Amino acid sequence: MELIDGNKIAADIVAELKTRVAALPGRRPCLALVRVGEDPASVSYVKKKEQTSATIGIESRLIFPPVTTTQAELFALIDQLNADPGVDGILVQSPLPKGINEVEVFRRIAAHKDVDGFHTMNLGKLAQEDDTGFVACTPAGIMELLQRSGVSLSGKHVVVLGRSLIVGKPAALLAMQRKSWANATVTVCHSQTANLAALTRQADVLIAAIGKPEFVTADMVKPGAVVIDVGVNRVPDATKKSGYRLTGDVHFPTVSPLCAKITPVPGGVGPMTVAMLMANTVKAHAQNRA
Amino acid sequence: MELIDGNKIAADIVAELKTRVAALPGRRPCLALVRVGEDPASVSYVKKKEQTSATIGIESRLIFPPVTTTQAELFALIDQLNADPGVDGILVQSPLPKGINEVEVFRRIAAHKDVDGFHTMNLGKLAQEDDTGFVACTPAGIMELLQRSGVSLSGKHVVVLGRSLIVGKPAALLAMQRKSWANATVTVCHSQTANLAALTRQADVLIAAIGKPEFVTADMVKPGAVVIDVGVNRVPDATKKSGYRLTGDVHFPTVSPLCAKITPVPGGVGPMTVAMLMANTVKAHAQNRA
Repeated sequence: MELIDGNKIAADIVAELKTRVAALPGRRPCLALVRVGEDPASVSYVKKKEQTSATIGIESRLIFPPVTTTQAELFALIDQLNADPGVDGILVQSPLPKGINEVEVFRRIAAHKDVDGFHTMNLGKLAQEDDTGFVACTPAGIMELLQRSGVSLSGKHVVVLGRSLIVGKPAALLAMQRKSWANATVTVCHSQTANLAALTRQADVLIAAIGKPEFVTADMVKPGAVVIDVGVNRVPDATKKSGYRLTGDVHFPTVSPLCAKITPVPGGVGPMTVAMLMANTVKAHAQNRA
Repeated sequence: MELIDGNKIAADIVAELKTRVAALPGRRPCLALVRVGEDPASVSYVKKKEQTSATIGIESRLIFPPVTTTQAELFALIDQLNADPGVDGILVQSPLPKGINEVEVFRRIAAHKDVDGFHTMNLGKLAQEDDTGFVACTPAGIMELLQRSGVSLSGKHVVVLGRSLIVGKPAALLAMQRKSWANATVTVCHSQTANLAALTRQADVLIAAIGKPEFVTADMVKPGAVVIDVGVNRVPDATKKSGYRLTGDVHFPTVSPLCAKITPVPGGVGPMTVAMLMANTVKAHAQNRA
């Protein structure tokens, strides 16, 4: 069994982007980071994005409107950033306060600045295999982990557990693309699937993204499979100072001995998300200058 | 074995639309039918769309620019139709002459008039399960055939053979939606799939859309499955006056005895396409007036 080291791969990508950005003529890429309110998890995520931007040489523009911001005010802010030629990418940190429609907000961002890849137009481009679009960071990160670990999907059976818009569906669409590293047969399973274990046991590559701690057990995995664990779940743990520990959607102790390769949690898919956001921002900068 | 009668179901839909349109206040729905050149198959398809529009009470606007039309000229025409408040839906008949980029043309049509459902934005809305979008007519027709034949997909395993943008991918996205009649586990197979028969034999509902005549044989189908045959292939047949016969992607003589239900070719999925185009036009008319 081989661990897929997301921290290492993400660091490699950040280093590559730093080299690319240093070689760019003209102004640096610029990422607008919009965080509404002071949700502690959001504060920490945005901080991480700001720090990684700085490491790479991406300018970040921090905009932190109060939690009382209305959808109309947020739209006005987004319109301003859309119109600003000095801004290449716009990230609006999720979750947004109650009363604000996230899909509408993500759709308000100009598609060519939508570095989170949540815009309807970018989802459509993913289905169309149009590479001018932006792919959501988590599924893009999964594909990058697989490629950089030497796992080709071509002709393989990829089983995706979960049909979310953020992970499951885009991961399925990526895996089935007519690309030399993709070309997978893809099955999407979810909460309504019957005989789930019989399906997951067919997976050459199993992508677990259902948000249920340690849901995938050894009987659900084919020996020799590659397992990508997207889950980040907090489970109570009295032995930890924080009172909880992080666990994935996979029961790592029993599943990992079976696998050819597996991502740990933390340190697997998680670190890739920020790296892919940075890659999307550098891509937006290049496309918007072209 | 029960035949799913696409002619009958399409006629039911046309009759329902006719009743709905007759009850509409104000002007009738209007569909612009754009056909570039005189390709005989396109002439016949557009004629059929015009006739069905007339039956329902949809006004059709026929625009037949010459085969020498440039992409820029076609864009100008589409822009005009986009801006025309009297036009609810715009259909540009495929295939377009060489040198014209179809994806770009379909993307030029205003998404809210894209009754063919090929616009990038409408594909994205399908992935987002946003019902304000338009779903491509063939996959929408497949779901309608299943629902009106009493086939619920919930918890079933749907295997889609083919990953085209026009049929395979949207059919997969529809079948996995969180709708009471959908909620299927979905596998997408294609030309690069290994052990194809082992996968198709798992299908409770098999949707064949690969464009290979009689490709699906009895050994690939589970007894009691529902089979939807999307293929329309011409194969040489000396006993026919035309010199050919139409066949689906399924070897009907040997597969049909195994099935709970199956669509014939012709007379299965085919007739649904025009019916769903009409349904999309009536929907566009309602949304554009709202």
